[in-house]
Amino acid sequence: MVKAELAPARDNQTNRESIYDKGIVSDPLPRPNLLITTDVVDPGSIRALSRYARVFSSTVLDEASLSQLLPSIDILLVFFWPSFLTLENLSRMSNLRLIQSILAGVNHIPFAQLDKKVVVCSNAGAYSDEVAEYAWSLLLSAAKRIVDFHNAVKTDQWTLRRTLGGREVTIMEEKTLGILGYGGIGSAVARIGKGFMVKIYAFSRKPVREKGVRSFQGDKGLLRVLAQSDAVMVSLPLTKFTNKFIGAFELAMMKKDAILVNIARGELVDETALYEHLKTNPEFRYATDVWWYREGKESLKTVNPFFELSNFIGTPHVSGPSGLATGKPVRFAVANVIRFLRGLKPKNVVDPAEYLVTDRQEY
Amino acid sequence: MVKAELAPARDNQTNRESIYDKGIVSDPLPRPNLLITTDVVDPGSIRALSRYARVFSSTVLDEASLSQLLPSIDILLVFFWPSFLTLENLSRMSNLRLIQSILAGVNHIPFAQLDKKVVVCSNAGAYSDEVAEYAWSLLLSAAKRIVDFHNAVKTDQWTLRRTLGGREVTIMEEKTLGILGYGGIGSAVARIGKGFMVKIYAFSRKPVREKGVRSFQGDKGLLRVLAQSDAVMVSLPLTKFTNKFIGAFELAMMKKDAILVNIARGELVDETALYEHLKTNPEFRYATDVWWYREGKESLKTVNPFFELSNFIGTPHVSGPSGLATGKPVRFAVANVIRFLRGLKPKNVVDPAEYLVTDRQEY
Repeated sequence: MVKAELAPARDNQTNRESIYDKGIVSDPLPRPNLLITTDVVDPGSIRALSRYARVFSSTVLDEASLSQLLPSIDILLVFFWPSFLTLENLSRMSNLRLIQSILAGVNHIPFAQLDKKVVVCSNAGAYSDEVAEYAWSLLLSAAKRIVDFHNAVKTDQWTLRRTLGGREVTIMEEKTLGILGYGGIGSAVARIGKGFMVKIYAFSRKPVREKGVRSFQGDKGLLRVLAQSDAVMVSLPLTKFTNKFIGAFELAMMKKDAILVNIARGELVDETALYEHLKTNPEFRYATDVWWYREGKESLKTVNPFFELSNFIGTPHVSGPSGLATGKPVRFAVANVIRFLRGLKPKNVVDPAEYLVTDRQEY
Repeated sequence: MVKAELAPARDNQTNRESIYDKGIVSDPLPRPNLLITTDVVDPGSIRALSRYARVFSSTVLDEASLSQLLPSIDILLVFFWPSFLTLENLSRMSNLRLIQSILAGVNHIPFAQLDKKVVVCSNAGAYSDEVAEYAWSLLLSAAKRIVDFHNAVKTDQWTLRRTLGGREVTIMEEKTLGILGYGGIGSAVARIGKGFMVKIYAFSRKPVREKGVRSFQGDKGLLRVLAQSDAVMVSLPLTKFTNKFIGAFELAMMKKDAILVNIARGELVDETALYEHLKTNPEFRYATDVWWYREGKESLKTVNPFFELSNFIGTPHVSGPSGLATGKPVRFAVANVIRFLRGLKPKNVVDPAEYLVTDRQEY
């Protein structure tokens, strides 16, 4: 088991002195055991965590050692939910007190199987700037019909019209951008929107008090945002309350030529209602980086043939990974685990009641 | 000829009283003759012009009437250069004093055939906000590889990789955006860039004194902008000095994974040098809305097969037309003609010497 520990100076039970302890004057209590279930955590972060915890990695442990270790684990640092953490294995983790997600959302966590004492932290905010950039790239691609135009020229379906009307293209300036869910991503989308001189309508649980942002709450607020926005950005977490948040009714409330962008989770939008809406309203556009679930996992295979429609843009969930590549999400998650280890209240604690769904979805 | 005049109340030589004169106390001098050679000018603008000039439209005149009219025309308001204004016809326009373009650029004007007394005005600035929005949509589409990703998913060439690196996607935050040509479009691109928290390097003839913008001039300045920028936006006018402004040498100076965006004129970039560069540097990306000239006219047909490359995005020159659709460019051009008619110095007067090229290009 010792070989699986990641602190370069080994810190097993018989030799608790490590180079990372040197700055600590006294360390009378045994340090908590932390299991990292992904290889995306960098050595620097592992060293930082090792000052406060005994750090193990599931990626270098064999099945038997891992099984033996689980009951002693206090903290889990996860990316995707690891397949070895079956319900049976999870039930043996009686010491577990904290699960920190490196993914922004936590809809991959099996809340129904967790003891009440387990605190679950999302990684909200860690990807905000990168995902907001991506969100604007989807919004503008749809507004200017970049994919459609590029493919039309590519396949010789376009003759340069010397007096093209130009009305196919949506100008965002002075238009209204509705943002559903005004967390880290939503507010970063709004910040970027100021440069484009759009009006920002924010729909959120708590009122937003921010210059240049109109704040809406509740069902009536949602309807006003949907009806008055020229583009709507979905940046909500996927919970049991937000599943199929945008259905046939909500789509019908929107402007006929509105643009809907989803950079949160596919399941927030009702797939078949969306398909029907896109088909009957060719001026309406949907641009997404996130996909619906099949057998509990996000899948690029859809029930409806979206790619036959020129008012659909779909990319293969790269907005989050592009943020991950910056190293920021790992640093955010690790810093939050360290807060917990130092006895401080961790950030981004989620309410398990919102995620208790029977058909849990991964990623 | 009278029927061709566009002022609803006829204002021919025998009856100079029109509803538009009512606000003018005295009008002893004959008003100048203005010929509009396009149908994009709205009735409201024509009424406004009719207060100061006798307004004719070539689109409703037969050939004989038009030919008879030309020697008396003082002012031309043009969109594309009209085919009836051959060199022979132009040589008969001895009264001509002003040509106002509704297109932003004036590289379609036959400067070599114009008398020195003719003032030519571009429509710089009239499309700035709309083209800057479009420019950002091209930049972000290239940065996030939207077209490439969409088409890959569409053609089943993408399997959702659950631990995608995300490094294929360029994050713009904290990166450097070089802007070549800091006029109306360039400065609007910079304004939007602030929301994305990019560093702005402006290359221009005159120094730019603007908060958050680093200003560069001359050959050395250009090289620094090219070498240090993660993305370069071309927003220069096409003149005899800027033809093939970006060639093999300039491309070689840029970062291997840089993004080059062209929303100005195709000819600013050397076509074959660009193709070779894109082919040998798959991380380099080019996104354009503007195309090279064939027989004096912009054409979507290229010598090199750009659409075979996944690091090329091309749209069929819709950025300007999208601005035209707002009505703003016509209002700008008309307001400038009215300045001239009121005896004020018109804006956007261009230096003919910069446009005296043997192979004049249209559009």
